[in-house]
Amino acid sequence: MKEKASNGMKNIFFTVGPTQTHPKLGEYLNEGLERGVYSISHRGKESGELFAHTVSSLKKLLNVPEDFHVFFIGSATEAMELIIENCVENKCFHFVNGAFSKRFFQIAQELRKHPEKCEVPAGEGFNMQTASIPADTELVCFTQNETSTGVKIDMPDIRTLRLKHPDKLFAIDIVSSAPYAPVDYGVIDCSFFSVQKGFGMPSGLGVLIVNDKCIQKAEKLQAKGMNIGSFHNFPALLKSAYKNQTPETPNALAIYVLGRICYAYLEYGPERIRKETDEKAGFLYEFLDNNPRYPAFVKNESWRSKTVIVAETPEGSAPVLKRLAERGYIVGSGYGEFADKQIRIGNFPMHEAKSIKRMLKVLE
Amino acid sequence: MKEKASNGMKNIFFTVGPTQTHPKLGEYLNEGLERGVYSISHRGKESGELFAHTVSSLKKLLNVPEDFHVFFIGSATEAMELIIENCVENKCFHFVNGAFSKRFFQIAQELRKHPEKCEVPAGEGFNMQTASIPADTELVCFTQNETSTGVKIDMPDIRTLRLKHPDKLFAIDIVSSAPYAPVDYGVIDCSFFSVQKGFGMPSGLGVLIVNDKCIQKAEKLQAKGMNIGSFHNFPALLKSAYKNQTPETPNALAIYVLGRICYAYLEYGPERIRKETDEKAGFLYEFLDNNPRYPAFVKNESWRSKTVIVAETPEGSAPVLKRLAERGYIVGSGYGEFADKQIRIGNFPMHEAKSIKRMLKVLE
Repeated sequence: MKEKASNGMKNIFFTVGPTQTHPKLGEYLNEGLERGVYSISHRGKESGELFAHTVSSLKKLLNVPEDFHVFFIGSATEAMELIIENCVENKCFHFVNGAFSKRFFQIAQELRKHPEKCEVPAGEGFNMQTASIPADTELVCFTQNETSTGVKIDMPDIRTLRLKHPDKLFAIDIVSSAPYAPVDYGVIDCSFFSVQKGFGMPSGLGVLIVNDKCIQKAEKLQAKGMNIGSFHNFPALLKSAYKNQTPETPNALAIYVLGRICYAYLEYGPERIRKETDEKAGFLYEFLDNNPRYPAFVKNESWRSKTVIVAETPEGSAPVLKRLAERGYIVGSGYGEFADKQIRIGNFPMHEAKSIKRMLKVLE
Repeated sequence: MKEKASNGMKNIFFTVGPTQTHPKLGEYLNEGLERGVYSISHRGKESGELFAHTVSSLKKLLNVPEDFHVFFIGSATEAMELIIENCVENKCFHFVNGAFSKRFFQIAQELRKHPEKCEVPAGEGFNMQTASIPADTELVCFTQNETSTGVKIDMPDIRTLRLKHPDKLFAIDIVSSAPYAPVDYGVIDCSFFSVQKGFGMPSGLGVLIVNDKCIQKAEKLQAKGMNIGSFHNFPALLKSAYKNQTPETPNALAIYVLGRICYAYLEYGPERIRKETDEKAGFLYEFLDNNPRYPAFVKNESWRSKTVIVAETPEGSAPVLKRLAERGYIVGSGYGEFADKQIRIGNFPMHEAKSIKRMLKVLE
């Protein structure tokens, strides 16, 4: 897509989220103001139409089946809490290979569930053929793209596992993979993302997509007298969603802008976005594989994320980030313990191939 | 303050929130984009400075003592859930006189606490001198301004009660009273509001203000092994707030705009805003008291809100709202069972006296 330094500065953000904003963000924000979107009643007809437009555009863009429900919440982190509260009575299972998949696991611990995990070292993926999930697991949690390390999980691998466990609910974090990576909703019961990554929006909106099996599980727990949360429990979110509303006064600005961006992506073509993302990831990894100063952190090619590319920086990340920033390219540092040892490059629809190439020239 | 049909249309929103936006909202939104606020890292120095600026401006504007903590969350509804989860082990007590104070009570029920209440009919306030609160109550909840009915509670009344119950925590909903109505933080342990009312912002940000007694209570419950929530429990919010951050990626846009609006309010003068609000409320109620077609719903003058003015419409609310809308004045309908019988008029800092007078001319 055509990216533009829409913030008026020369900087281009290749960070992994928040990141470069969509080139039309300013236009959409002002349009929302002109149209009164930030003033109209959140219980009225006009607001309901905007809500419904965003939901239908999003479902079309992400290939979400009609019978899934879309809930607007505050963040992907909140989605993790809500999924655990509403879908787990006693036990869930997590595939952990970095900070964000670990966060999902820790939230289950904090909520006094009894999560178990399959954990592999940072930079590695999973062998789903050999993964062993306890029989009494109610929910299995995946992170399609581990933003801290740049490792992906492919849908066919999840499908393999699902065939062995048709009785369990499957949840997937698609935070930094949407709208690029396909999700097979035939084997997934709920997914979630936040808008400050592949959608190029300001942060502050989480999107949670759930099927009726998740709703039924929440209702079952509620009937048992369990605490499944209050205003944002699944039955409450569903009741409001049927009216094209949220239980609380919603982030109408973000819902409106998300609808506009989904529509823009649909017009541009989801397949074209996917093809461009693959191409950009292709020459990013090619560059890393040919430059011993920046070896790719993820060695196994089949585990390499196309949207979050992580490079090791044997000379330390600080001088590399500084050199890039001086030329207007803002790239992310490594995450947590890797802060000084790695850099992370976001490859989202807003990022143009030619700017990535220019940025790589600076790295050379 | 100078209001402007900032949405570019002739409509002026006198609704009770979402409402007329701040006249400089468009400028602030674009400024945030220009400055890269929507792209910068939420864990970085620049983001921390913006966060700290908003917190300090807000504390100054609302006279919040230095040792209170400001947390940014999704909505006032979320604040209700968090306060109950973090400050109540077994029992809380609620003053209920309308839909929003009732919502607070219901959230306590949903969270399996054992709330009790003092409930009075819609349109009425409380006699705090005679209110009886069970001895084992841990938290007492007030709604400074009941947005559904236009009834206020005065701080001296809360002070009276606090003197009798120094052992309990006191929480106050200031959703539609801030920044107008003073809060005496000597007798209040936590307060909360959302930004789409007196701050004239798009909805989607809740602000929660708590003291150390609330934090200590949460830590005590946590140590007992109770579920106090995960990413947004008070200890987690506090840990992040110390770093000028939120646990999740925050609504940076709203935090930035809130800081700008607080600063603008401080420059304009909080006392001047208060005086203007009193004057505007004065002639709104004077109009209602002199027009039998629109009697004020709240009969007792000492209970009448200055920021949400509710009028009965014996001819039905629909024709009144239609007549006003045709002239560009968008006024709220009654709430819930009063939808067809009342109208509600927001009187916030953005609303200019002269537009209110013009709107009242249409009503006459």
